[in-house]
Amino acid sequence: MSLKAKVVANTCLALCLSLASFIGSAQQLNAEQKAELDALKATALKSELSYQLIESLTTEVGHRLMGSEGDKKSIIWAVNKMKALGFDKVWTEEVTGSYWLRGDAKAKIIAPYPHDVVVLALGGSIGTDKAGLTANVAHFETFADLKAVKDNSLDGKIAFVSYQMERHIDGEGYGPAVGTRVGGAVVAAQKGASAIVMRSVGTDNNRTAHTGVMRYKEGVKKIPAAALSNPDADLLVNQLKRGKDVSLYLNMTARTDAEVKAKSANVIGEFTGSELPEEIVSLGAHLDSWDVGTGALDDGLGIGMVMAAAHHIGQLPKRPKRTIRVILFAAEEVGLLGAKQYVVDHKAEMPQHVIGAEWDFGIGRIYKMTPGVGAQSLNAVRELAQYLAPMGVALSPDNNAKGQSDMSALSDAGMPSIDFAPDGSDYFDYHHTENDTLDKVDPEALKVNTAIYTMYAYFAAQTAADFRK
Amino acid sequence: MSLKAKVVANTCLALCLSLASFIGSAQQLNAEQKAELDALKATALKSELSYQLIESLTTEVGHRLMGSEGDKKSIIWAVNKMKALGFDKVWTEEVTGSYWLRGDAKAKIIAPYPHDVVVLALGGSIGTDKAGLTANVAHFETFADLKAVKDNSLDGKIAFVSYQMERHIDGEGYGPAVGTRVGGAVVAAQKGASAIVMRSVGTDNNRTAHTGVMRYKEGVKKIPAAALSNPDADLLVNQLKRGKDVSLYLNMTARTDAEVKAKSANVIGEFTGSELPEEIVSLGAHLDSWDVGTGALDDGLGIGMVMAAAHHIGQLPKRPKRTIRVILFAAEEVGLLGAKQYVVDHKAEMPQHVIGAEWDFGIGRIYKMTPGVGAQSLNAVRELAQYLAPMGVALSPDNNAKGQSDMSALSDAGMPSIDFAPDGSDYFDYHHTENDTLDKVDPEALKVNTAIYTMYAYFAAQTAADFRK
Repeated sequence: MSLKAKVVANTCLALCLSLASFIGSAQQLNAEQKAELDALKATALKSELSYQLIESLTTEVGHRLMGSEGDKKSIIWAVNKMKALGFDKVWTEEVTGSYWLRGDAKAKIIAPYPHDVVVLALGGSIGTDKAGLTANVAHFETFADLKAVKDNSLDGKIAFVSYQMERHIDGEGYGPAVGTRVGGAVVAAQKGASAIVMRSVGTDNNRTAHTGVMRYKEGVKKIPAAALSNPDADLLVNQLKRGKDVSLYLNMTARTDAEVKAKSANVIGEFTGSELPEEIVSLGAHLDSWDVGTGALDDGLGIGMVMAAAHHIGQLPKRPKRTIRVILFAAEEVGLLGAKQYVVDHKAEMPQHVIGAEWDFGIGRIYKMTPGVGAQSLNAVRELAQYLAPMGVALSPDNNAKGQSDMSALSDAGMPSIDFAPDGSDYFDYHHTENDTLDKVDPEALKVNTAIYTMYAYFAAQTAADFRK
Repeated sequence: MSLKAKVVANTCLALCLSLASFIGSAQQLNAEQKAELDALKATALKSELSYQLIESLTTEVGHRLMGSEGDKKSIIWAVNKMKALGFDKVWTEEVTGSYWLRGDAKAKIIAPYPHDVVVLALGGSIGTDKAGLTANVAHFETFADLKAVKDNSLDGKIAFVSYQMERHIDGEGYGPAVGTRVGGAVVAAQKGASAIVMRSVGTDNNRTAHTGVMRYKEGVKKIPAAALSNPDADLLVNQLKRGKDVSLYLNMTARTDAEVKAKSANVIGEFTGSELPEEIVSLGAHLDSWDVGTGALDDGLGIGMVMAAAHHIGQLPKRPKRTIRVILFAAEEVGLLGAKQYVVDHKAEMPQHVIGAEWDFGIGRIYKMTPGVGAQSLNAVRELAQYLAPMGVALSPDNNAKGQSDMSALSDAGMPSIDFAPDGSDYFDYHHTENDTLDKVDPEALKVNTAIYTMYAYFAAQTAADFRK
């Protein structure tokens, strides 16, 4: 036996022993349930339902920002679809907040070399005066550089942060980039800027800016905040490199309608458990979207996946033991308003949320699952991972998941969760842009991811394991 | 010797025999010239000049549609750059035409499901009435389908052609798609349509429409013509699939200023030949661009490549035998106006244009060269191909090149040409869009392509071979 053959044999032996030890432990699913799981997997891998739901939502409703006409239409759409899909119960729960109106945003380099440039107002920003504002640009390569200058030193200039987000499979480039978007206007105002313009938080090379939520702070002057497309940020940097003053014109009509309390709603549907109906396995996604694309990826995908997953399970002859609850959250984009409201509304019931998973991260194939569960249930998680492994899902050694986006609020309120991580390499090419449209949805990846969510929900609803900490 | 080894040996033998037969023939370049060619290659592969020129043109001038302010600025820019680069002679030749103003273009699906959609006016189109027009959509999957319906049968509807351009390495998908753009308005008007909206001629998935020239016909009613972005074309098709009437609103303020005769100019510079100054080796590119990006690929690239190639040769201690002439053509986009004017202005001199090559096809690496020369010079072309082969350039077996874009007009007037073909797979992602910007330029591919153009021009200016037919 060659050395190489020996190594292979030893590795096989180790794997076999590990498998044997696993097989030796008590199985969560019995043979009949295992057969149902396999059938659900086959159904989901064939079904066009999740795609059809996304196609319907993006074609018939379109974008749906908190408080907008699209938001209202999407709530009706979701209720009707859930009823048509045979959910045992369907209801809405009111969520209130403010209604921000994007208006128009125009920008132009005035000097030294005039160019129109593409900007979008950041979500929540005020507008400029009607005539717009023209000011020289103060350039900062990073948010830290902007923070480092003295208060009131910018003398009415437009602060420009040119930091470029990095592309990573798990989207880890988002964190270092998004700080400027959320907090840049407050810091720039403290430094004396008249407005802030930042390079879009995005990895694409389109003249399409990326919006997203920003915040003001009590006691700090509100200034307009906008994102510039990546190629236009390059152009601005190249003009600045020449060492002359660069003057920028900005005109934005964004505003928040302070008089109107906007109303939206969480839309909830469930298939009631046959043995433990009070114990809830939840599947989440957010129904709202930014107002620039049709919200196909963010988060039409999640809507389609979780509604289809629950429906497939609802087609079984008998309901699983636990209740499967689909929660379509309102107003995620403007600050998890729906999720926070859900935690308030369901305070007494929160301990009965035995596990939850959200989908809100695009169309890449799922390659990893990370639990955040009580240690006593890790064997059950390993069994689920075993079922998902043939679909390319690896089990993370960590047990610290906190729930994706909305589910993080439920997780903070004590709910165990499982996070499924997809290849997010190109997610930030489209995120919060007008390019977030149906054509970006890969129907084959969608089938696989829907199958994984279907299997997760079925398994969690049938297992005797308790995931709670 | 194994069978495989035998095949390899035989292949080597065949190659060696072929090389020996080539080496046996008279060489066009002597040892000193060969050394100069090698040095030029090394210089071009290191030089940032072509990139710097594109950066300067796109940053300091921007887009430059025939007759616009940018067009005027680009002429001054080109003259100054050529002088700074040491050209022996630099001059301009007037080109006149009309000045088309894009104005704004807005479109919206009104029913059954309201959506804003992204359109651009096609170049040369008229606008709508001030109030815009709203009409039901008549859908055709191909231009042939539109042609097939009866005259005056569309009853004021908006004709919509949804044909999707295919992606190919050599851009061959463009031909089948572009007919609708150029001739669609005439046919749609004959069928009784009030306007024509077509899916953009482009291979991208951005909500960015592709403009490009269209034509009217004497005696046929002029109707507005616009291109719709690919994702919006999908959305419109998906709404139409539902079988209900789909109503579209279109508002365009495009117009041609018929009162003003627009003036532009070909910008020409040359390094005068030391022995055969009247014989011209030409390098072409077009200085104008569409008015939506910064014309970095189309055709800033060509401008940078041909100016840099000539400059590198001009740095040699002695001018090559023939004159190297760089022609930056005006008004290519609106109908090769500069090239046509050049042929008129240089009628007597056309037989002295011994060979020409244009660059107007993006940033992919050159993988093929195709001559269109007198048969007596094919051995010389093979020698050039031998020098270029290490850079990945294969010699086409054909001898039928007609010159890229502008050069086709000179080719029609008798000039021999060589066409260099790059990988154009992604060219039509950006072509005629606002995304045609500097970041799309790959500096490394640009160096290689510039080196190839430098070597072509040097070789053609030094060889004793006569390429003329």
